[in-house]
This record gives sequence, structure tokens and C-alpha cells, in this order.
Amino acid sequence: MIQRFGPSRMSQTRGRSVIYNGVVTTVATSDRKEPSLYAQARDALTVVDRNLNEAGTDKSRILTSMVYITDMRNKPELNRAWDEWVDRANLPMRACLGVDLEGDDLVEIVVTAAV
Amino acid sequence: MIQRFGPSRMSQTRGRSVIYNGVVTTVATSDRKEPSLYAQARDALTVVDRNLNEAGTDKSRILTSMVYITDMRNKPELNRAWDEWVDRANLPMRACLGVDLEGDDLVEIVVTAAV
Amino acid sequence: MIQRFGPSRMSQTRGRSVIYNGVVTTVATSDRKEPSLYAQARDALTVVDRNLNEAGTDKSRILTSMVYITDMRNKPELNRAWDEWVDRANLPMRACLGVDLEGDDLVEIVVTAAV
Repeated sequence: MIQRFGPSRMSQTRGRSVIYNGVVTTVATSDRKEPSLYAQARDALTVVDRNLNEAGTDKSRILTSMVYITDMRNKPELNRAWDEWVDRANLPMRACLGVDLEGDDLVEIVVTAAV
Repeated sequence: MIQRFGPSRMSQTRGRSVIYNGVVTTVATSDRKEPSLYAQARDALTVVDRNLNEAGTDKSRILTSMVYITDMRNKPELNRAWDEWVDRANLPMRACLGVDLEGDDLVEIVVTAAV
Repeated sequence: MIQRFGPSRMSQTRGRSVIYNGVVTTVATSDRKEPSLYAQARDALTVVDRNLNEAGTDKSRILTSMVYITDMRNKPELNRAWDEWVDRANLPMRACLGVDLEGDDLVEIVVTAAV
């Protein structure tokens, strides 16, 4: 059985999260498009928390996280938000890539977690 | 048991799809490299359909879709093709990122689906 | 049960690999940051091998591989390293994207494999 959460706040034609085989995959951007990567990363990680909670899990059960930022030179700001947020007893695999995002988004995060 | 489909039409050293644990992951680009993102996105989504059918499933069972485009300014064209194609009763999680692709490719799509 | 490997050599706040539901996901970059994509790709694929071995599996059981490079014009160098390395009897799905990476990294690879 596939369990779907959505549509996303961004669009009526995309979901926010999906659960299958005991794993949820969710996507998050910042709700408020502040000009600081640190601020957006904190905010996006809060959205990750909210989406995981909605799916019945939390950050201690994250498996993988793909973090996409628009300016690799600011990666230390992302790392700061990450380090404040991550569950150090349960480190997810993480990769961080520099890409283009839409509009004022500076960061987008895709996470898988055990439910 | 791992079930593999391939090699891809692009290369003898890569697969097109793989099934494991009841989930298929597949990758698609446009067969015809038309200069319009809308045209390529439609075409790539048709390849997604074909690959999913080959794996015994279809777009109603897509879990996640990662969409990579070469020019974020043209994202509305991608969205148009997506909106015409997506199963609105079964919304996948979707993220869309701006990256570089090879040659004349304007879009590449990686999808997971329940089989 | 979630099985985690890490922290990564890059950071105390990220893991290197995670196993869940019989699938490992792992991330690799080159240990030595040589200026050649071919050299870095060979090296990163060796790290993939090492991480998979640590997780109790090997490249014959890879499901998917996402390959991120910083300069798409050099993709033939990546393909050369890939072709020398890949298990042709067990082709993974592969996608290769041009993105920004940190520092001197020219390639980063995220792989899923059955354990």
C-alpha cells in the first residue's frame, strides 16, 4: 500500500511525502524565502521535521538526505544549520550539491526515513 | 532478487531500470532532442511510462520523481508537460533541480515506483 | 532496524552509509583530490567498493548510482573510469548530472545496493 501526503503547498500536482515499504520520502524548502541560506536551511529543516511527524516518524530515523543549495560558497551556513539540527546519535547519509532552484529558494532537501 | 532492465539505449554499461524489494527505479531522457523543454519533457515522460510498463507498473504507482532540467527559467514548460501527464489521484513526491546535462538533453527524470 | 556507518571522514555530523530494508545507500568522493576527473572517478569508485564491502555487499548488487560531476564536458573521463569498473553482468541504473561540488571535488557518487 502506498500512502501519500499532499498536495504540496507549492503545487496541486505534486505530493509532499510518500510512504511505501516502511520508508517515507519527503521534500522540503523554506516556507519564508529569507535571503540567508542559514535562515532558509533552518526553516527547511523545520519543514522536514513537520513532514516526518506527519508521516509518523522523526529525524532520529532519517536514512538519507540530499541537500541542494544554489551557492556552494555558502555551504558553511548550511552546515551550521545542519549541525544544530541533526541527531548526532543517528547520523544520516548526506550529500550536498550545488544546483539551480526556483525563484528565491536557496535550499531544497529530500529526505528518506524509516517510519 | 534483483531484476535488471537494460542496457540503456545511451550506453552498453548502464541499465535503464532495476527492481528490488517491490520498487523499480528508472531513468529517462527524451528520445528526440527537440530544442523545446516542453517537447523533451513530454517525450521523457513517455519514456518513463514505457519503462514503468516494462517493469510491470504504471504512473499511478510512482512514489518519487526527481526532475533535472538545464534551465530553471523554463520550468513552467516542464510544469505544463507534468501537469498534462501526472495522475492527479496519485501525486508523487517531486523535486525539480537545475543542473547540466549531456549534449542536447534539456531534461532527465529519475522515478521510483511500486511494482 | 537501521544500521549506520560513520561518521564520514569529511564530517562528524554525517554518515557514510545506512542500511535499511536490505538496501544500503552510500556516498563517496575521491580521497585524493587530483585535478583529473578520471583519477578522481577511479578513486571515488574505489571508495564505493570499500563502503559496500563494509556494508556486506559489493558492486554486483548495486541497484542505482547517481553520479555528480562538476564539468559535463569531461563526462567521457567519468565514463572511462565507470566502464573499467562496472560489473557488466549486473548493470546498475545510472544518471550523471553536472552540479557544483565543494572545494576540489570533481565527482561525488551516491549508490544504492542490495545487501
